Amino acid sequence: MCNVALLGFGTVGSSVAKILCERANTHLRLTHVLNRNVERKKVDWLPSGVQWTENIDDVLSSDAHIVVEVMGGLQPAEDWIRRALQSGKSVVTANKQLIARCGPELIALASQRNQQIQFGASVAGGVPVISGLQEGLAGDELFKIRGILNGTCNYILSQIEANGIPFATALREAQKLGFAEADPTEDIDGLDARAKLTILARVGLHCNVAPESVMARSISPIDVVDFAFASQLGCTIRQISWAEFRKDSKTESQEGVLFAAVRPSLVELSSPLARVEGSQNLVVATGTYGGETVFGGHGAGGHPTAVAVVSDILAIARSRQSGPQSATSPAGQPVEITPTVTADFTAKHYLRFLVKDRPGIIASLATILSRCGVNIDSVQQKPGSTKSHLPFLITLEGCKASLVEQALQQINSLDFLVQPCLHMPIL
Amino acid sequence: MCNVALLGFGTVGSSVAKILCERANTHLRLTHVLNRNVERKKVDWLPSGVQWTENIDDVLSSDAHIVVEVMGGLQPAEDWIRRALQSGKSVVTANKQLIARCGPELIALASQRNQQIQFGASVAGGVPVISGLQEGLAGDELFKIRGILNGTCNYILSQIEANGIPFATALREAQKLGFAEADPTEDIDGLDARAKLTILARVGLHCNVAPESVMARSISPIDVVDFAFASQLGCTIRQISWAEFRKDSKTESQEGVLFAAVRPSLVELSSPLARVEGSQNLVVATGTYGGETVFGGHGAGGHPTAVAVVSDILAIARSRQSGPQSATSPAGQPVEITPTVTADFTAKHYLRFLVKDRPGIIASLATILSRCGVNIDSVQQKPGSTKSHLPFLITLEGCKASLVEQALQQINSLDFLVQPCLHMPIL
Repeated sequence: MCNVALLGFGTVGSSVAKILCERANTHLRLTHVLNRNVERKKVDWLPSGVQWTENIDDVLSSDAHIVVEVMGGLQPAEDWIRRALQSGKSVVTANKQLIARCGPELIALASQRNQQIQFGASVAGGVPVISGLQEGLAGDELFKIRGILNGTCNYILSQIEANGIPFATALREAQKLGFAEADPTEDIDGLDARAKLTILARVGLHCNVAPESVMARSISPIDVVDFAFASQLGCTIRQISWAEFRKDSKTESQEGVLFAAVRPSLVELSSPLARVEGSQNLVVATGTYGGETVFGGHGAGGHPTAVAVVSDILAIARSRQSGPQSATSPAGQPVEITPTVTADFTAKHYLRFLVKDRPGIIASLATILSRCGVNIDSVQQKPGSTKSHLPFLITLEGCKASLVEQALQQINSLDFLVQPCLHMPIL
Repeated sequence: MCNVALLGFGTVGSSVAKILCERANTHLRLTHVLNRNVERKKVDWLPSGVQWTENIDDVLSSDAHIVVEVMGGLQPAEDWIRRALQSGKSVVTANKQLIARCGPELIALASQRNQQIQFGASVAGGVPVISGLQEGLAGDELFKIRGILNGTCNYILSQIEANGIPFATALREAQKLGFAEADPTEDIDGLDARAKLTILARVGLHCNVAPESVMARSISPIDVVDFAFASQLGCTIRQISWAEFRKDSKTESQEGVLFAAVRPSLVELSSPLARVEGSQNLVVATGTYGGETVFGGHGAGGHPTAVAVVSDILAIARSRQSGPQSATSPAGQPVEITPTVTADFTAKHYLRFLVKDRPGIIASLATILSRCGVNIDSVQQKPGSTKSHLPFLITLEGCKASLVEQALQQINSLDFLVQPCLHMPIL
């Protein structure tokens, strides 16, 4: 029998409790539920033996074998996880920001104490991508991970595309339906996806990078007109998280380069990434030997996230049966490296302008672009727009993003622009 | 250090050897390569310490910890795997027919000897679906698994669809390109996919079923005209493997019912199953809590299959570090049940006829169908066909497959039929 204590009884926590109670044969027993103001949380469907508490010391001094942290937030979660590991308990957490920031330290601490820390629910909810990369594809040498890791952004972009509504309306509707938070910054600006990408880069590419070192761009400037232009190019727009490790860029002075970014991007309609609808998640892992492998499903929600949590609990329970695992350096695990991180991908580029129309605009733009050494691929205009708010599109031939940024610094000060140019890579 | 012996040095075996040699840090050492006529197999890129042999006793008496069986075929593979387990060695195999037939016995034998047997490569090659169901989704209660499990069939069907060529031509081309065997029966008739479905039902649904109890239908009657009709219905045609466990059908006399079949089926174009191209594989697992989770990638080929084999080797090496695992009943593993197996799904149905045209055909067919209690949904005809070989389509409203089969027994003896009616479910 394996005793489980639950820290947090919100959407995910109560789903975890539900699965543990409804599934027989699991050899797992829920012993504690901790929450602030725990009285208002009490439910009648949990066994009477469960202890409801607000005090972490009740959990730490108990006979719980596994502590499940599903409170979210950096503190007190981090502190309590450390104390749980130090008390000789294993930990399961769904806390992506915490694992993105302190994952390696917490894993090392767990290993010192002959315990485990599992975090399968921290990325892509119910989609078993962490165990898929770590175990299922352990035999491959992965070098690229692309994904749609934030259901909120994907829902909003799908709604703009399907219903032709502006960003602000789509966001409000997502908030009304519970697909977006009251303060949506973490999701919209890519900070949530960036934490998840950091974890995937660590687990799949064995690259230790700080979340802050990965570029994140907001999806808020995306408008209906961008889907019309994208469609003309045979593409749609999605928030794409991309991490690609280039070994060939390894020199004596550095351990290779990780190309990493989270941003709205154009993706070809034929790509599996283009077909992800609503709040679904998808991860495509590419390896030297096995090529592309795809993992997809529900990236959020109480029940799917709880499935990942319970799977992690079961994994720890299994390995408790067969003695402690050494978590830091299991046989065959490649050594982790710390590469340089850059967002300077070479790609085709999408530049969408909104201008007060007048003669000479294309000439001014073309002059600046050519001075920066980038070539125009096409110029497109949407018919029937007003002269005072004219959207038009310039696509660029493949070039480094840094050259485009250079050109945009000059372009964004031109007086005929109604708003700064929207710039996305075409993947 | 963990010593690995390889039985079989064909496409998969040599890919496994390549990955073991190319990847440093793996703590794995290849010690033996066994093959018939081993002299002609010798390569210069393996370390000189590797022992090449034709004699299984060399392997069994050696210090190899893990024996990897990638020879295929039932014998001597089964015999050698048993002897390896009995000699205290763990086993990794890619042999789907063997695992479909004797998986539970071999797992029990391994467990008796405190060893493990892993078979991640037996289904969907490099796609980590076995570990995904067994571990990543262990926290869910799966009840349905659908998949495209045979790359050869999917390649042939994709080619008929894309190029409008007859089945026989598509098969010949697949054989020329190495996507189909000289004797393609196992693939075309669904026996290969059926073995894989049996394994997935065991691992994911905890249903122990014999492969022979699962209905398998050939894709050979599918013709260009069927893709035209399917397209009119907003569908395409794929070989779909389907296993669905109905708990509510559990009675005192039986342990529930497993609906299972492998057959060409119409799938809506919006389904992820419809978008699987070429020799790719895809598995969709559905659970009570997590909803649908998708696993996709390269289902065959030396390198992708070798990735699955090496991942299994690494999993065993990891658990060797932490002591032996009890393989039969790990904590939280639901008890396996033995359900009744049926292919009698309720679905809409596609009946495609090829007839010598004359008045009264629809009337005869409609009479028989109505006597059997099934309702016609639509009748469609392709314009511009010859009267002596006129293809036309009847779709039926949702009904049990057994009622349709009953009607077809009478229909197939009608003298205006040029060939037996082609019958597929519309999923």
